[in-house]
Amino acid sequence: MVRTIDLTVETRGQGDAVDITRDVARAVASSGIVSGLVTVFVVGSTAAVTTLEFEPGVVADLDRTLDKVAPRHGEYQHHLRWGDDNGSAHVRAGIVGPSLSVPFREARLLLGTWQQIAVVEFDTRPRARQCVLQIIGD
Amino acid sequence: MVRTIDLTVETRGQGDAVDITRDVARAVASSGIVSGLVTVFVVGSTAAVTTLEFEPGVVADLDRTLDKVAPRHGEYQHHLRWGDDNGSAHVRAGIVGPSLSVPFREARLLLGTWQQIAVVEFDTRPRARQCVLQIIGD
Amino acid sequence: MVRTIDLTVETRGQGDAVDITRDVARAVASSGIVSGLVTVFVVGSTAAVTTLEFEPGVVADLDRTLDKVAPRHGEYQHHLRWGDDNGSAHVRAGIVGPSLSVPFREARLLLGTWQQIAVVEFDTRPRARQCVLQIIGD
Repeated sequence: MVRTIDLTVETRGQGDAVDITRDVARAVASSGIVSGLVTVFVVGSTAAVTTLEFEPGVVADLDRTLDKVAPRHGEYQHHLRWGDDNGSAHVRAGIVGPSLSVPFREARLLLGTWQQIAVVEFDTRPRARQCVLQIIGD
Repeated sequence: MVRTIDLTVETRGQGDAVDITRDVARAVASSGIVSGLVTVFVVGSTAAVTTLEFEPGVVADLDRTLDKVAPRHGEYQHHLRWGDDNGSAHVRAGIVGPSLSVPFREARLLLGTWQQIAVVEFDTRPRARQCVLQIIGD
Repeated sequence: MVRTIDLTVETRGQGDAVDITRDVARAVASSGIVSGLVTVFVVGSTAAVTTLEFEPGVVADLDRTLDKVAPRHGEYQHHLRWGDDNGSAHVRAGIVGPSLSVPFREARLLLGTWQQIAVVEFDTRPRARQCVLQIIGD
């Protein structure tokens, strides 16, 4: 059985992250699928999905670390070609990745207590992010 | 239903990336599976799979960024043990990861317009990369 | 068909990694599922799952690289808020990610010869890591 749910997530631009754990848990609980895998996929090439202990300190630490790896105000060939200012976002998103798969059992996500599912925004402006939650199982 | 397709991708060595979106889309379209998940897995420990806005600027920016993180000409214990020169490739591949899962619906990948599926080569020489496309769904 | 197996992995703290390829291969072989996808998910927000050529040099190179990206003894807002000392672990885990999906066929994992499945510990103390191996297929 396969269920595919669309989710829109509003973000405030680079450095922001949104905890979507409840949305994913609710989608699983209402899917009628008891045991299986939910894949969270963010549409677009300047955001990512991962798990974090979702508290403002960790979100800020991740942003600060990635700003050393791919500085927002660095030089990027992508800027020269397209007149964009979000080269740092493309690089960060390519490294962290757009998809995450989480197993569930008895319709409950098998996450840790301090492990949340986060959409991480890397783009330099606020975005309405389209996410796909796809549930496969029995 | 499960379908498993092999795909060989020729690369030119570290810094190269190959857009395989069409190959994946064609595999999904011809699988007979309408709704589900396609997982792209690259065999080997010196390459990765992710999504990128696939244009030469972004590919070059990713390479330059990762060369700061894990410099090609840096010192690696892997070199000392094996006489290899691709320690940077092993580290980069471990961070970015070998697999990507993309949902599809009505036999179409749910990617963004400027979001392509990329095999990213980190090894220091050209490779013929074996990829596995595995499609699961209804 | 879906099978979900629990696996506990003992680690020695930051810089350690454990090769769980045999555990995953055994779980697949005994699942009765011939063709499909196994997802390895580590519960918690301070560890990750990826593939590596599993030899001590690569494991040490990955740790040294990530210690430049997110230094163990750096300053983290997470420390100020919670009195923890593992901000580097949270950031590294968020970047590398908690899940990995590997296709299999004829009950055999489609890994490369020098490609192993590794649980990578980032926390600053030894942990008994709970992993979930979830097998979906025919």
